[in-house]
Amino acid sequence: MDLTKIKNPKFLKKLSNEELEYLAQNIRTFLIEQLSVTGGHLGANLGVVELTLALHKEYSSPNDKLIFDVGHQSYIHKILTGRTDQFDTLRKYKGLCGFPKMNESEHDVWETGHSSTSLSAAMGMVAARDLSGQNHSVLPIIGDGALTGGMALEALNHIGHEKKDITVILNDNEMSIAGNVGAIHKALGRMRSAGKYNRVKDELEWLMKKIPAVGGKIAQTAERAKDSMKYFMVPGMLFEEFGFTYFGPVDGHNFQALEENLKYARKTKGPVIVHVITQKGKGYYPAESDKKDKWHGVGPYKIDSGEKIKPVEVAPAWSEVISNTLQKLARTNDRLAVITPAMVLGSKLEKFQNEFPDRLFDVGIAEQHATTMAGGMAASGMKPFLAIYSTFLQRAYDQLVHDVCRQNLNVAFGIDRAGLVGADGETHQGVFDIAFLRHLPNMVVMMPKDENEGQHMVNTCLNYNDGPIALRYPRGNGLGVEMDDALKEIPIGSWEVLKDGKDAVILTFGTSIPMSLEAREILKKQGINVKVVNARFIKPLDEKMLHDLMKSEVPILTVEEAILKGGFGSSILEFAEENDYQIKLKRMGIPDKYIEHGDVGKLLEEIGLTKENIIDNIKTMINKPLSNKKRA
Amino acid sequence: MDLTKIKNPKFLKKLSNEELEYLAQNIRTFLIEQLSVTGGHLGANLGVVELTLALHKEYSSPNDKLIFDVGHQSYIHKILTGRTDQFDTLRKYKGLCGFPKMNESEHDVWETGHSSTSLSAAMGMVAARDLSGQNHSVLPIIGDGALTGGMALEALNHIGHEKKDITVILNDNEMSIAGNVGAIHKALGRMRSAGKYNRVKDELEWLMKKIPAVGGKIAQTAERAKDSMKYFMVPGMLFEEFGFTYFGPVDGHNFQALEENLKYARKTKGPVIVHVITQKGKGYYPAESDKKDKWHGVGPYKIDSGEKIKPVEVAPAWSEVISNTLQKLARTNDRLAVITPAMVLGSKLEKFQNEFPDRLFDVGIAEQHATTMAGGMAASGMKPFLAIYSTFLQRAYDQLVHDVCRQNLNVAFGIDRAGLVGADGETHQGVFDIAFLRHLPNMVVMMPKDENEGQHMVNTCLNYNDGPIALRYPRGNGLGVEMDDALKEIPIGSWEVLKDGKDAVILTFGTSIPMSLEAREILKKQGINVKVVNARFIKPLDEKMLHDLMKSEVPILTVEEAILKGGFGSSILEFAEENDYQIKLKRMGIPDKYIEHGDVGKLLEEIGLTKENIIDNIKTMINKPLSNKKRA
Repeated sequence: MDLTKIKNPKFLKKLSNEELEYLAQNIRTFLIEQLSVTGGHLGANLGVVELTLALHKEYSSPNDKLIFDVGHQSYIHKILTGRTDQFDTLRKYKGLCGFPKMNESEHDVWETGHSSTSLSAAMGMVAARDLSGQNHSVLPIIGDGALTGGMALEALNHIGHEKKDITVILNDNEMSIAGNVGAIHKALGRMRSAGKYNRVKDELEWLMKKIPAVGGKIAQTAERAKDSMKYFMVPGMLFEEFGFTYFGPVDGHNFQALEENLKYARKTKGPVIVHVITQKGKGYYPAESDKKDKWHGVGPYKIDSGEKIKPVEVAPAWSEVISNTLQKLARTNDRLAVITPAMVLGSKLEKFQNEFPDRLFDVGIAEQHATTMAGGMAASGMKPFLAIYSTFLQRAYDQLVHDVCRQNLNVAFGIDRAGLVGADGETHQGVFDIAFLRHLPNMVVMMPKDENEGQHMVNTCLNYNDGPIALRYPRGNGLGVEMDDALKEIPIGSWEVLKDGKDAVILTFGTSIPMSLEAREILKKQGINVKVVNARFIKPLDEKMLHDLMKSEVPILTVEEAILKGGFGSSILEFAEENDYQIKLKRMGIPDKYIEHGDVGKLLEEIGLTKENIIDNIKTMINKPLSNKKRA
Repeated sequence: MDLTKIKNPKFLKKLSNEELEYLAQNIRTFLIEQLSVTGGHLGANLGVVELTLALHKEYSSPNDKLIFDVGHQSYIHKILTGRTDQFDTLRKYKGLCGFPKMNESEHDVWETGHSSTSLSAAMGMVAARDLSGQNHSVLPIIGDGALTGGMALEALNHIGHEKKDITVILNDNEMSIAGNVGAIHKALGRMRSAGKYNRVKDELEWLMKKIPAVGGKIAQTAERAKDSMKYFMVPGMLFEEFGFTYFGPVDGHNFQALEENLKYARKTKGPVIVHVITQKGKGYYPAESDKKDKWHGVGPYKIDSGEKIKPVEVAPAWSEVISNTLQKLARTNDRLAVITPAMVLGSKLEKFQNEFPDRLFDVGIAEQHATTMAGGMAASGMKPFLAIYSTFLQRAYDQLVHDVCRQNLNVAFGIDRAGLVGADGETHQGVFDIAFLRHLPNMVVMMPKDENEGQHMVNTCLNYNDGPIALRYPRGNGLGVEMDDALKEIPIGSWEVLKDGKDAVILTFGTSIPMSLEAREILKKQGINVKVVNARFIKPLDEKMLHDLMKSEVPILTVEEAILKGGFGSSILEFAEENDYQIKLKRMGIPDKYIEHGDVGKLLEEIGLTKENIIDNIKTMINKPLSNKKRA
C-alpha cells in the first residue's frame, strides 16, 4: 500500500482486522526505513502502530479530539492524516515537526512536547464541549512515565471529581524515557499481572456466593466485603479510587482487543481509562530488545544490524563531561549526590549510577519534586547536583523561587540543553532559563566557554557553599579542547578577557563565543580591534570589569543564545543605569518569539545571531556618536 | 500554666494525658485571645493543638525533623519552642513570622508558605540522613488539601518507590482553604468512614474462613481474593498502592489514640502514613461551626461573639471588583468561564459560583493543571479567566511557556495579590510575575490605576482574542473611585498621561501611581514640572509615547512595585537600546532580595520605594548632564 496516498483516516472504518494488520506492517516498514535516514523517535512510534490505527478507526478525528501526550509518538497519526510525503524533512528546518503541530493539520488539536500536559488539556476541552452543548469524544493518550508528572496527577484528581465524559488512553510500555520510577509504576505492574485473572471472574463470583448469608452487623460487613472484591476483579483499583472506570489491561498489538475495549469505553459515561499494554520498538528487533531505551530518540542507523551511524565525534558530549566530572568528584566528596528527573540516559549518568547507586536519585518525570528534594538534602548538609534540561527546569520555577533560592540552599543545578536544541524545536529550546533565573535573589548562573572550563565549573559548583548555583551547558558536543588533569575553582563573578582590543568589546558566553571570536578576526583585518570577554558568570556580573569598560566609554556588544527580554544583555543595561553610565550598547540574542525546530546553524541565521551581524553592529556603534541630537 | 515559660518541648515527655489536655486548653485560650487582637491563621492552628503536642511528645525536635506543609498551622509549634512572648508581633514588621522560619528557632528545619512542598523536602532530608549514616525521624505534616498539589503527588510516588523510613502525618480536616476538591478527597472520605469497620476485622476473617478450600486454578483465585480483602481491612488502600503502610484514621483530638498510632508508626520500617482526623477551629465555636472556612486567615475579632472587627472600608476589595465584573459579563458572554485553584473564597468568587455553578471550575490546589486546562478550553473556543494569586502562578510557569503562550491561546489571567502582600511575607509577595511574564512571547500584561480601570480591563481581557492576556491587581481594597456603568475596552498597549509636565516623566503603574502623583505635587511647588504616565500596559509598551518621550530627551523615572531585575524598568532600557536612544533613565522597584512580612508601607520604606526617593531621583536626573565625561 502506498502510504503517501492516505489523505485522512476515514478509510480505516472499512478495513478488516486483516487489512489493518497489513497496513500496520506497511507503516512499520516505512518508519524503520525512513527513520534509518532521518533519525527520530522510533521506539515509541513502533509501539503505538496498532493503537493509533484502532483509535482512528473507532473515533472520527478531528471532530473527536486525539491528544498525544509528549507527542513524539504521533508519527502514525501524521501518516494517517496525510503527511507521509513530508517524512523526508522530519525534524529538519522548515520540515515536518517531531511533535503534533496545529499548523500542519486540523487533526493536531493540541501541541505537545513536554510530558504530562494531555489530561489537563483534555479536561479543558471536555469542559468547553459540555458548556457549548457539543458532543464528541476527547482522548488524551498518555504514557505510563508521563502519568507520574505532578500535573497529570492533578488532572486525574480533578477529572475524577468532575465526572465528565472523557476517555484516557494509558499507553503502558513499562518504560518512559528509560526505566520507570515510582509507586504508580509498581501499581501498573500489579494491574498488568492481574490481567490474566480477569477470565476467572466467574469463578470468583462463585466463591463469593459461598460466603454464608448472615444478618445484623455482620451483613453489613459482608456487603462491604463484596464491594472490596472489586479490588480483585478490577485490577485498576488505583484508577477507580481516582473516580475512573477502568478497562484493561488490553493487548495494544491486538486489533480485536483494542476495538472491543474502545467500544466499551465509548459506551461508558464519566471518566474512563483504557489501560493498553504496548511494546516500545515492536516489530524491529534491535529496538524491541533494547532494555535501556537507547532507541527512544535515534539518529540514522543501519536497518539490517541496527548499528547506529554516528557522525565522527571530535569531542566528548557536554553531558558526558559534566557526568564524568561528577563521578570523579564523588570519589572524594561524600556530600555529593545527583538527582535526575528521568534523565539518567539523556544526561549520561549511567556510569555515575553504576559506581554510586545510592547517590543517584532518579525521581521519575517530577521536576518540582526533584528541585525541592534537592533543597531538603541541602538543608541537611548534603550538596545535591540536580541535572536537568533547561526546558524542563521551567516546571520547577516556583520551587526555585520559594524553596531553594528563598532559603538560600546549597543546591547545584546542572542545566543541560541550554540554548537552542535543534531538532526537538519550540517546546524544547533552552532559551528562557537566563531570564527566569537572573531575577531570583541568591542565584548564581554561569556558562563555560568550553568543556575544560565546564569541568572546572562542576568543581566550582560543588565547592560553593553560599547558596544555589547553576551551571548551564549546551546540547551536543564540546569543542575538543585539551582537558586539565587537576580541577580548579573559577572565582564567582569573574569574567575572562579572551582577546584584547580597544575599539569595542563583545561580552558573550558559552556557544556564542566562537562566532564572536571569528567576527573579531575579520574586524581585525579591517583595522578594528575588538576585545572579546568570556562573560562566564551571568549572575553575578564581573562588576570590576564592567566599571572599567564603561568608564572607558568603549562601545559594548552583548551576544547571547538566549531570550533577549530580561536576559544577560538587559543586565548590562541595568548595570549601566544603576551606576549612571551613559554607554553605547547593543544587544544580540533571541527575539520575542518561539523558535521552531531545525539545524541550530540555520536557526541562528534566521534570527540574525551570526558573525556577520556582530560585525555590522560593532561597525555601526563605532561610527555613531553618543548622543541623540547628532543622530537626528 | 504560663506558656511564656516554655523554652523547648522536652517537658512534654513527662506529661500525662490529663496534663496534656490541660495544656491544650491553655494553648487554645491563648490563641483565641491573642489572635482576636493580631489576627492570623486561627482555624488551622486550633485544629492541630493535640496533634502538635503529641508529635513533640513522641519525637525529639530538632533532632527529629518536623516539617509543616504550608506552615500556617505552626503556631503551637512556635509556642512549644519558646516563642510565646513574640505573638504580639505576629505577622507584623520585624515580628514573628506566620510561617516556620529558620532564623527564629533551630526547631524550624524547613520554611514553608506555598502548599505541597513538605513531602519533597522530607524525602531530601531522609536521603541525606541515610547517606550520612544518621538516625532520626523525618515527619512532614501535610493537610488533605495540600496533598492534591502535583508536587506532593510526585513526592508520594517517589517516596513509595525508595522505601526509606519516613512518617507522613496526614492532617485531614476535610477542608483545605475552602472546600476540598477531587478524587483524592473522596478517597479520604471513604477511609474516614471505613474507620468504623476496623473493629469488625475479626468478623471478616471469620467470613473468609467460610470460603471453601479449593485446589488448582481456583486455589490461586482464592488466594488473590484473600489478598484483595486488604482493600477492605486497610481503609488506606490508596496509600498502600503508593507503597505506604497506612495507620488510621486516628482521632486527632484524642491523645491516647495519637500516641498509640505514632508509636506504631515509629516501629514500622519504610514509608508510613498516619491519617489523623482533625477539626479546623476546634474548641472555638464560631470557627468550629464555620463551614466555609471564613476563619482560615482572620483579622481581629470579638472573642465572645466571633464578630469580625473590620476596618472601615472606604472602597471595595480588588478581588470583589474583578469578580463582580466577571459576573456581569458572564450574563451576556457564553464563552466566559472562570477557573480557580482552591481560591473561591480568596478571590471572592462565591457569588459568581452561585449564579454560574457550571462555569466556575475549582480545580483544587493545582495551578499547573488549572493553567493548561484553561489552555484546553481556549483551544476549544471558550474564553477562560484564570483567577490566581501572583505567587501561586509561579507554579505554572512552564504551562505558561509551553502550553498557553507557545500556542498563543486566548486565556485571560487574573493575577490577584500582585505586588507586596504584607503579613504573609516572603513566600507570598507577588513581585516576580512581571519578570517571569514579560519575556514570554505573545503575552500581554497590564495593571489598572484604580478599580474603575480594573473593571474595564476585565472587559478588555474578555474581548481580546489574539492570545494570552494577564490583568494583575493588588491585594486589599481599591481607591474608592466612582465606577462607570458601561464597560469600556482599553486599547492594548496604550498608556495614559495622568498629569503633564516638561521637566521629567515618571512611568509607573498600579499601586505606585499614588505616591508618584504625590511626589509630582511636591516637586511642582518647587518649580519642577513632572509628567506622570499610567503605564498600564507592561507588555506591550506604548511605543508611540516612548518614542515621543525619548526624542524629547526628557529624563525618565520608572517606578514599580515589582522586582527590578528584568522588570518593567528594564523593558524601558531595552526599548531605548533597541531604538538607539541615549536617555537619562532611573529605575525604582524591588531590589534583588526577598522581602519579609509586615505592613506594606513599612516594607516600601525599607526598600526605598517612597515619594521622597522619587523626588530625589527626579532632581538628581534633572541636574545631571547626559554624558559620562562631565560626570567624572
